[in-house]
Amino acid sequence: MSKSRKLGLAVAQMGAVNLADDRRSVVARLVEMLREAAGRGAKLVVFPEMALTTFFPRYWMPEEEAVARYFEKSMPNADVQPLFDTAKQLGVGFYLGYAELTPDGRRFNTCVLVGTDGNILGKYRKIHLPGHADHKTEAPFQHLEKKFFEVGNSGIPVIESFGTRVGMCLCNDRRWPETWRVMSLQSAEIGLVGYNTPSINIHWNEPVHLRMHTHLVSLQAAAYQNAMFIAAAAKCGSEDGHHMIGGSVIVAPTAEIVAQAVTEDDEVIVASVDLAVTEGFRNHVFNFAKHRRPEHYRLIVERTGAGAPLPQEDI
Amino acid sequence: MSKSRKLGLAVAQMGAVNLADDRRSVVARLVEMLREAAGRGAKLVVFPEMALTTFFPRYWMPEEEAVARYFEKSMPNADVQPLFDTAKQLGVGFYLGYAELTPDGRRFNTCVLVGTDGNILGKYRKIHLPGHADHKTEAPFQHLEKKFFEVGNSGIPVIESFGTRVGMCLCNDRRWPETWRVMSLQSAEIGLVGYNTPSINIHWNEPVHLRMHTHLVSLQAAAYQNAMFIAAAAKCGSEDGHHMIGGSVIVAPTAEIVAQAVTEDDEVIVASVDLAVTEGFRNHVFNFAKHRRPEHYRLIVERTGAGAPLPQEDI
Repeated sequence: MSKSRKLGLAVAQMGAVNLADDRRSVVARLVEMLREAAGRGAKLVVFPEMALTTFFPRYWMPEEEAVARYFEKSMPNADVQPLFDTAKQLGVGFYLGYAELTPDGRRFNTCVLVGTDGNILGKYRKIHLPGHADHKTEAPFQHLEKKFFEVGNSGIPVIESFGTRVGMCLCNDRRWPETWRVMSLQSAEIGLVGYNTPSINIHWNEPVHLRMHTHLVSLQAAAYQNAMFIAAAAKCGSEDGHHMIGGSVIVAPTAEIVAQAVTEDDEVIVASVDLAVTEGFRNHVFNFAKHRRPEHYRLIVERTGAGAPLPQEDI
Repeated sequence: MSKSRKLGLAVAQMGAVNLADDRRSVVARLVEMLREAAGRGAKLVVFPEMALTTFFPRYWMPEEEAVARYFEKSMPNADVQPLFDTAKQLGVGFYLGYAELTPDGRRFNTCVLVGTDGNILGKYRKIHLPGHADHKTEAPFQHLEKKFFEVGNSGIPVIESFGTRVGMCLCNDRRWPETWRVMSLQSAEIGLVGYNTPSINIHWNEPVHLRMHTHLVSLQAAAYQNAMFIAAAAKCGSEDGHHMIGGSVIVAPTAEIVAQAVTEDDEVIVASVDLAVTEGFRNHVFNFAKHRRPEHYRLIVERTGAGAPLPQEDI
């Protein structure tokens, strides 16, 4: 293995943010976890998707009401400024998810990567929006990401920073292998993802234990197959009675979990990850230039939905 | 869930095939496992990659010698005919991997799918050839797939058969998410893979336990993310002192292992898989038509190797 390249990587899992919680109290929790992570050697801290509010797509409401209550009109803003200030003071960067309202009134499920100098280095707007746009009156709760958000227009960014290359995605993106592949094709060595994952699937009768299992397996395979470290931050626990899974993890390119949260509350996990570990995988089994065969992958971009089997040549 | 659609699916794992073993004795083992699988309710049986011979790419030799000793000039042929005959008699289909020499002298790492009537329904020629073409004289053994085989020219086939749609791949293909995605975009409900996986990675110092772990995680994620059952058949154990992993499995779209071999010998595992289980995943979380965003996946076909991060727009 080549020379060790260590980075202190932390995930700041969040317990519930209830409807009654205001942003200032939430940001105070984030600041406290940022301090803990820095004290434990972290240089990069991952917060969840929609970290500043409750997971509001579970509630049916007009878009205007959602915007007024849950969307950030700028980033940073007065409520979030203490987090940016503390990070700069500590020399720690972070990933933060939030609902974004653009100056021209567009709505995205967004995250930013903030450098150790407190500046925003890059932004990602979620591509794989799960759920629905209609009011499912029979369901115990809604999953209205397709109502409240547009499909992201940022691409899947990989940002040169923290002495490496860092990719970003959000929640449901992590279940789609295309997400991570587009990162690794841009030479990402670290992938970050925040999530809010309800324990109950309102769409069909999926056994509840699978929610954790498929979350972990998806991240483990992605880290291995793309020769990257992945840090995944949950917002979890019971938000006003609506339960979401925890299971925040840092996963190595070995497909092994190197740190895992065990509560459903605010909890910081930290790993000193050696980025040199990515190289054995990237240079051998997953040496893309040597082994990939894009001429056989064309259906991945030529089809959206599944279709008929391609005709087979007589060989 | 919709109406149950059950299929008896078996994996016939093979223990070692040593240099001294002739094809007739190997085929006799396959026939015996086919009979056992049929007796336990299987309609489709998966045999390993290069099932008829030892895993010869571990030995340095001229191509002509490899062809003479290890390649099949036709399929079926006299040695393999008893397997085809028994399958037809029992009304069981199978997948079989072998080294193929074409009439015009080309060499492929190939598998076929054989129907319950004993006819070949389709053929796959391996795309992701691992290893190297040069003689690594320092290595304890070779991995010469890039010397002995051309990259396959069959595409990744999905074949309407067994009351469903069956995709095929071989060994190292299973570690590449593109393989399974190309199958699921052709509406495969079952994916089959045979493999020979050395326990020791000759290319770099990969911890040995990871060989089993990454094998299983890759299959679990693939089954889940593509809403398919996957049946994976090892040739394993110690071939003339060269050890290969077992771990033959049948994996469900839940990312759960529903059957697993526990020996490193000839061993049949059978599951009655309900293909209707695929539908919950395919119609909801992995409703491709609703959720996939190919416009963001273009790098997957536009790049072979990893490159620089794409420039970020100012958003």
